[in-house]
Amino acid sequence: MNHLVARSLMKRVITGGDSRRYMSSASRVAVLIRPPFGEAVIGVRGQGVGMLLGGWRRMISTASEPSSTGEVPQTEKESSGTVAEKKEEKGEVMVSSYWGVSRPKVTREDGTEWPWNCFMPWETYQSDVSIDLTKHHVPKTFLDKVAYRTVKLLRIPTDIFFQRRYGCRAMMLETVAAVPGMVGGMLLHLRSLRKFEQSGGWIKALLEEAENERMHLMTMVELVKPKWYERLLVLTVQGVFFNAFFVLYLLSPKLAHRVVGYLEEEAIHSYTEYLKDIDRGLIKNIPAPAIAIDYWRLPKDATLKDVITVIRADEAHHRDVNHFASDIHFQGKELREAPAPVGYH
Amino acid sequence: MNHLVARSLMKRVITGGDSRRYMSSASRVAVLIRPPFGEAVIGVRGQGVGMLLGGWRRMISTASEPSSTGEVPQTEKESSGTVAEKKEEKGEVMVSSYWGVSRPKVTREDGTEWPWNCFMPWETYQSDVSIDLTKHHVPKTFLDKVAYRTVKLLRIPTDIFFQRRYGCRAMMLETVAAVPGMVGGMLLHLRSLRKFEQSGGWIKALLEEAENERMHLMTMVELVKPKWYERLLVLTVQGVFFNAFFVLYLLSPKLAHRVVGYLEEEAIHSYTEYLKDIDRGLIKNIPAPAIAIDYWRLPKDATLKDVITVIRADEAHHRDVNHFASDIHFQGKELREAPAPVGYH
Repeated sequence: MNHLVARSLMKRVITGGDSRRYMSSASRVAVLIRPPFGEAVIGVRGQGVGMLLGGWRRMISTASEPSSTGEVPQTEKESSGTVAEKKEEKGEVMVSSYWGVSRPKVTREDGTEWPWNCFMPWETYQSDVSIDLTKHHVPKTFLDKVAYRTVKLLRIPTDIFFQRRYGCRAMMLETVAAVPGMVGGMLLHLRSLRKFEQSGGWIKALLEEAENERMHLMTMVELVKPKWYERLLVLTVQGVFFNAFFVLYLLSPKLAHRVVGYLEEEAIHSYTEYLKDIDRGLIKNIPAPAIAIDYWRLPKDATLKDVITVIRADEAHHRDVNHFASDIHFQGKELREAPAPVGYH
Repeated sequence: MNHLVARSLMKRVITGGDSRRYMSSASRVAVLIRPPFGEAVIGVRGQGVGMLLGGWRRMISTASEPSSTGEVPQTEKESSGTVAEKKEEKGEVMVSSYWGVSRPKVTREDGTEWPWNCFMPWETYQSDVSIDLTKHHVPKTFLDKVAYRTVKLLRIPTDIFFQRRYGCRAMMLETVAAVPGMVGGMLLHLRSLRKFEQSGGWIKALLEEAENERMHLMTMVELVKPKWYERLLVLTVQGVFFNAFFVLYLLSPKLAHRVVGYLEEEAIHSYTEYLKDIDRGLIKNIPAPAIAIDYWRLPKDATLKDVITVIRADEAHHRDVNHFASDIHFQGKELREAPAPVGYH
């Protein structure tokens, strides 16, 4: 019922019909307003205003130009009715709320609207591409060898499946790479809660790693579109890997971090091969996607090669963090006893 | 074997013995050095230096003064031997690593060292205490009613157990409150990966909520120490609640967010009662702990009352975010289609 009434109202809005809105006491949805000065205003004006969300568009592309919002009449809060308010214009769906939850308007340095929801300008950075890519943890203990050999074994089917399709490899393996940081971060979070202990910053460090890997994925997906069977494979692998890593981290965080360290070493190797293929002309060195230019603060004329270079530098940093974390455990300590490397992905 | 040799070396360091260190190729642990100018230096100098961690202390108290580090001879990287390096001085254990993973030196505005690992100065904020505490989502749909009645039912044993022990109540219930944001954030993260979709910022929003609740806990634990049976209860409740909420979020994120919204409404009520008891003199209005003063940017003479006030304001914001999230689902949309409220807890 709600949807039928909503659609009918929506049409009336678009065609300039009656401006009265019915509000349900269940959802109390406010209507977007577009102030006369033409700029969408979003308050961090506190909960008292609570009406404005303004020109956010659905994040479905990497277009850096914001799409415009339509004008919508001012809200009337009434306690009767059962309608949820929607406004659909130019393929956008905006849901507003009387709860006053809003996103402040964020602009770039040049004044254009910041087009991304999943990262803000202050979360962008420049990768340290001088990082030592050759560092390797030589397996000494039994657990180290288990970790190393497991990773080397997993490489075999991976190489057979992807061969030299490095774009596809990166796109699919980043869906795996973004799991350990999240699982580790979450388990440390739960531990901190039940033991009433400080975290030493490691929860954030691991969650940052997961988010960084996810941004690698969001970038690769602009370059390489997954096919249906690849999506199915990703789904399956996530189901298996998430659960396996969850259990592994519970049983042996030392081994878990060591595995991730070795996985990152392999990732560095793969990205190096990717760069070689670009240099040989086997893979076209296309312009970098907008999301990558913003996230890594790359120059406007950056190319795929620049993107892969910074991604590889990130992986090297993750390698160091995870081997370090494993070393801490190896020394019989808990992560929170050593400062965590937050603030750089 | 490693530990025996390590202890022996450690004693020699403290008593001024031989400065040569054996390094294992497995752990390649570097030794902390304290530059002659007396200040502990930590590089964001890139991986090339990689030796310095400097004056971090183990985060086991809310003391705002950093403790000093001892001088340790410079490292020698040798590939033989099986020793992990440790330095224990003044009750501190510092683990260093050749991986070059370090934390930059962070100071307050007055130049003193920032004593916290789990949050940085740029992550502190001032709570909006003018937030409307009376907002309530009137249950309209069947799921709303399920959520509301479940929360009201859960209140019964909670009130019986805690009665007017609001400090203890807050300390224990924050261990529960910090779970939903983490579970929700993680599930959205996994979804974003396997569907190759943007998140709309909601992963961060929910993880921020979880971290904020955890900071509430870290604050309360400075004021109220848990007894052994309370710790046991927290352990049990976490085991049950984490799994239950995980499944709930998979089945119905709409219901999950609505439940959290109502839980936050109850939290606001409890904190209001806490403040009333402080005003009546039933609970002593002690000085605020240092962690709270730094995290919420409170004045130096802030008291328990100020801390509970800002915590309550945070809960009100979480209430709004979760009811909003549920509204979005109620309207048949996914969270990523509406901008997420990041940047304010």
